[in-house]
Amino acid sequence: MRNVCIVGTGLIGGSIALALREAGFQGDIAGIEKDDDARSAARRSNAFSTVAEDRAREHGALTGADVVVLATPVLSILDWMEKLSPILTEMQLVTDVGSTKRSIAEAAGRLFNADGKARFLPGHPMAGKESGGIQLAEANLFRDATWLFTPVGGLSEVEVGWRGWVQRMGARTMDMDAVRHDEVCAWVSHLPQMVATGLAALLEERFAGDAEGRGAVEAIGGRALREMTRLGASPYSMWRDVALTNTEAIAGTLEALAQRLEHVRENLRTPELREEFRAANRFREKR
Amino acid sequence: MRNVCIVGTGLIGGSIALALREAGFQGDIAGIEKDDDARSAARRSNAFSTVAEDRAREHGALTGADVVVLATPVLSILDWMEKLSPILTEMQLVTDVGSTKRSIAEAAGRLFNADGKARFLPGHPMAGKESGGIQLAEANLFRDATWLFTPVGGLSEVEVGWRGWVQRMGARTMDMDAVRHDEVCAWVSHLPQMVATGLAALLEERFAGDAEGRGAVEAIGGRALREMTRLGASPYSMWRDVALTNTEAIAGTLEALAQRLEHVRENLRTPELREEFRAANRFREKR
Repeated sequence: MRNVCIVGTGLIGGSIALALREAGFQGDIAGIEKDDDARSAARRSNAFSTVAEDRAREHGALTGADVVVLATPVLSILDWMEKLSPILTEMQLVTDVGSTKRSIAEAAGRLFNADGKARFLPGHPMAGKESGGIQLAEANLFRDATWLFTPVGGLSEVEVGWRGWVQRMGARTMDMDAVRHDEVCAWVSHLPQMVATGLAALLEERFAGDAEGRGAVEAIGGRALREMTRLGASPYSMWRDVALTNTEAIAGTLEALAQRLEHVRENLRTPELREEFRAANRFREKR
Repeated sequence: MRNVCIVGTGLIGGSIALALREAGFQGDIAGIEKDDDARSAARRSNAFSTVAEDRAREHGALTGADVVVLATPVLSILDWMEKLSPILTEMQLVTDVGSTKRSIAEAAGRLFNADGKARFLPGHPMAGKESGGIQLAEANLFRDATWLFTPVGGLSEVEVGWRGWVQRMGARTMDMDAVRHDEVCAWVSHLPQMVATGLAALLEERFAGDAEGRGAVEAIGGRALREMTRLGASPYSMWRDVALTNTEAIAGTLEALAQRLEHVRENLRTPELREEFRAANRFREKR
C-alpha cells in the first residue's frame, strides 16, 4: 500500500490519517472533503499529505490510491460507492467506516468485487467521540478498539494489507455478518444514543421555563446525569443516516426499552423491582 | 463538636469518618453497624475510633455524641429517627445522608426540633459510587460535591458547626426545599438509575440464550454501553428505599421517558428526529 485516499476529513478520517503515520506508513495520504470549513481545518491540521482542492485533483487522488477509505456518514458513503464503482479498477480496495453495515454490504455486492471492479471491504471501527471534527482527531483513537469488518466475498491481497494496517493502528480486527452487526449495534450503540438524546431533550424541555429548577439540576446533577446524557451532544447529521439505514432494529430496541421502563414504573413498590436489579447486577458483573 | 457517632459504616459513613479526620477533626468518631461482616470490615479499616460491639456501647456512643450522622438506606434512617427521638437531648444534632428527603423532613418535624428534643438537619451529599462498602470509602469522596440540606426550622449552633465540617470536607453546601429536592433528584439521579437498571436487565435477558450474540456485545460494546449501564451494578437494598419514598416523582419521570422513547421510535425516519437531537444538543451545550 503506497497511496491512501481518505474521503471525509473529520474525526474518524483525520484520526486514520494520524494513526497511519504513527504506525509508520510512509506513502501519500490524500484527503477529500466537500465542506469548505472542514477542508480548511484539514489543511491546517497537517494530518494529510494533500487535501484536494478541485474535482480534477479529487479524481486523481481517487484513481491513484491503492486504498480509498470512505469516512463520511452512511448515506454519503452509499453515494460515493455509486460514484467510485465506474472509475476505480481491479487492483484498488475501497473500505469504509460507516456505523451501519447492511446497506453498505448490499451495495458492495452490487457495485464492487466483480471482474474489472475494485474490491470493497465494509468496515466499522468501534471508536468515536460525541463531537466530530478533525480538531478532535487523535493518532491513538483506535488503540485497543475493535475494528469490525463485514466482508463480501473472498480475501484479496490489498485487503490483507489494509487489515494489517488496521492492526498496526492498535485495533483488534473481527469479522461479522452485516445483518448481525446492525442488530447488535442497535442494542449496544444506537439504543444508548437514542436514550441519551431522548433523556437530554426531555430534561431540556421539562426545565425550560423553570429557572430555579434548572439551577437545582445544575447543582445536583452529578456523574450519573453527565454519563447518561453525554451522547446527547452527538450530531444529527451522522445519526440521521444510522436511523435511516437501521430503522427496524433500532425501533425494536426502543420499543423494548420503553416497555421495560413501564414495567419498572409499575413495580416501584413490589418485589419485582429486586428481580430487575438482580438481572442488571448480573449483566454488570460480566463487565 | 467533640464526639461524632456515625450509624452505618458503609461507603458514605466510612468516607465521612475519613474525611472528618482529613479535615482535622480531633474528637472521637464512633461507628454503629448492624451487619456483622460490615462491622468487622469497619473495624479493620481503622476509619473509626471505635465500632460499638453491643447494645450498651451503641447506646453510650449515641447519647454521648454531639452529632449523630445516620448513613444507612432511607427506611432504616426513618427507623433510627423513631429510636433516637426519645433518648437524645436538646444539645445534640442528628443529621442524615439519605437519598430522598421528603419523608425524612416530615419525620424530623414530628420527632425532633421541639423543646427537649434533639435537633435534626436532613442532608444529602451528592456523592457515591455504584458499589457500596467501606472498602471503597475515600477521604475525598465529597471534595467539590454538592451537599444538600433541607432544613426544618431555624439554625442551631451545633448545626452551624456541622455545616462548617461539611465544607471542610471539601463539599459545597446548599439548602433546598425537601419536596423540590425529591422532584429534582427523581430527574437527575433516580431516573438515570432506573434507566441503567432497566437497560442492563433488558440486555441480560435479550442475550441470555444467545452465546454468539453475547460475544458480539462484548466485542462491540464500548464506552456508550459501559456508561449507560454502569449504574446497573447498584444494589437493590439502597434503591428499594428510594423507590418506596419517592414513588410518585420517579413514576412520573419513567412515564415521561418511556413516552419520549416511543416518540423517537415513531420519528426515526422523519425530520422530527432533528428537533430531538437539537434539544439534546442544547441541553449538553450548557454543561
